[in-house]
Amino acid sequence: MRVLLALGGNAMTNAEGRARPEDQIAAAEVAMSAVAGLLAHDVEVVVTHGNGPQVGNLLVKNELAAAVVPPVPLDWCGAQTQATLGFVLMNALEAALAARGVERSTATVVTRTLVDGDDPGFASPTKPIGRYLPADEAALLQGHGEVWEDRGHKGWRRVVASPEPREILDAPAALALIEAGFVVVANGGGGIPVVREHGRLRGVEAVIDKDLGAALLAETVAADVLVVATDVPHAVLRYGEPDAEELGEVSVAALRRHAADGHFASGSMGPKVDAVCRFVERTGRRGVITSLDNITQAVDGGAGTVVTPA
Amino acid sequence: MRVLLALGGNAMTNAEGRARPEDQIAAAEVAMSAVAGLLAHDVEVVVTHGNGPQVGNLLVKNELAAAVVPPVPLDWCGAQTQATLGFVLMNALEAALAARGVERSTATVVTRTLVDGDDPGFASPTKPIGRYLPADEAALLQGHGEVWEDRGHKGWRRVVASPEPREILDAPAALALIEAGFVVVANGGGGIPVVREHGRLRGVEAVIDKDLGAALLAETVAADVLVVATDVPHAVLRYGEPDAEELGEVSVAALRRHAADGHFASGSMGPKVDAVCRFVERTGRRGVITSLDNITQAVDGGAGTVVTPA
Repeated sequence: MRVLLALGGNAMTNAEGRARPEDQIAAAEVAMSAVAGLLAHDVEVVVTHGNGPQVGNLLVKNELAAAVVPPVPLDWCGAQTQATLGFVLMNALEAALAARGVERSTATVVTRTLVDGDDPGFASPTKPIGRYLPADEAALLQGHGEVWEDRGHKGWRRVVASPEPREILDAPAALALIEAGFVVVANGGGGIPVVREHGRLRGVEAVIDKDLGAALLAETVAADVLVVATDVPHAVLRYGEPDAEELGEVSVAALRRHAADGHFASGSMGPKVDAVCRFVERTGRRGVITSLDNITQAVDGGAGTVVTPA
Repeated sequence: MRVLLALGGNAMTNAEGRARPEDQIAAAEVAMSAVAGLLAHDVEVVVTHGNGPQVGNLLVKNELAAAVVPPVPLDWCGAQTQATLGFVLMNALEAALAARGVERSTATVVTRTLVDGDDPGFASPTKPIGRYLPADEAALLQGHGEVWEDRGHKGWRRVVASPEPREILDAPAALALIEAGFVVVANGGGGIPVVREHGRLRGVEAVIDKDLGAALLAETVAADVLVVATDVPHAVLRYGEPDAEELGEVSVAALRRHAADGHFASGSMGPKVDAVCRFVERTGRRGVITSLDNITQAVDGGAGTVVTPA
């Protein structure tokens, strides 16, 4: 069985969301201990991950050092986090595997994801990134072509395009490594967004939703199950209300109806539900949303919100 | 024929050594045009590269943003440049291949290189990195455990360990991709330096010489020839003197004697000569030092300083 595991950004920070190097290393050790448990059950695992807090840090560095060294674009920031998180995840997973006496090699592939240059996201950016700034500082950056939005008492925040992932361009490399027996880390942060222009690829200032990227990667590498790991064990109907209901096994059609009824927040559970539904609809296989400590039972359908084709 | 091509840091900046994103992209297009020419001759090519100017920029960002976001260690900076340079090199190479009608896929592998924790470099760091600072600012950073040296009128500069590369830990992933037909970018910046402690890998604050890393990678992936590309067509005896002599074909024993006689500068041609000699001594195959525009002739022994086993 081949599992595509998508780790949330929260799997790579401390409990307060801080992303110092030591926080990322400690969090990766917890996450990879769970993955090692899964690998001990003789399944193939492909890992992808979010990178929001890490990219946020890089954007601040860009800004504060801009007078001395050239800022790098958002696609480069994404690339940078693929390498640092891949590095940290490989080290943590290898240690966890060694502790269990499981022999597996790991590999991290720098992964580009194709988007459309005329994706509507570029005209109407919606994805908030980086830190909040006061209005005057935001206005300065708007003058340099960035889009910033007033977010009330917290201040202003930059928004960028979150275009649809069209093709995971480096999935063939990931697949070659999977088939050679490696536990592969790929498409971190949803992939480095690129457009194709006159036969060349060019990076673009955008952030691909990592769960939608994971769904496309899962389909491309022929995963049997897509597991979206988050900080709760289930997707929940009427979340936070007295009659809230955890979803166990659910058909993709029923889950789509719940989504249409507004049960899942657009910035958090919404994209995870959408990603899992897409994978199940396109492949007829299973998707699961659950917390990291449940992933081993989840791949057998024994935990989490298990989404089935019918 | 399998060629390991090591690109100098200068292959990734503009003529003045600047490393803005647009400089790196433009320089990569020139370099990858030469590599596409080589690939059109039906050879396998593995690419590795330096990262000095790029890491220098990241260190400045670390420093200037330290009050707001956590600095990342030197091994993370190296990882970051593996991804950004791999990204840029893949895009440039694919465009150059498409222009020639050559079909090849590329892949970039995040690559860790094992070093010894008791390498003498850690006790006596010698490799200068990053920018020059005035004495008082350097003193502040020395107080945080860094080693800085007085470099005269230019100011003070940080020095770090440059330990011996012992094992290219992710070479098996690179090899699996090479054998699947990919043009692989690997071990950028000499590899992310790690030590093994209590069964786990830990990144260390060091810079592995990228040419020595290239020699070990070339041996590990069974390259037939190691080509170290630089900005001059040959290694030169009595460099800069009236009776300077360009070296063409030369035995490794003779080249070692020239090195012992002090013909090659320690910060520039010296490590390239050492790297090529190591590869030839260990494998009995050929090594070449030459400029990028000569690499196609060089792999057949028709250009550059060609180092032979006897």
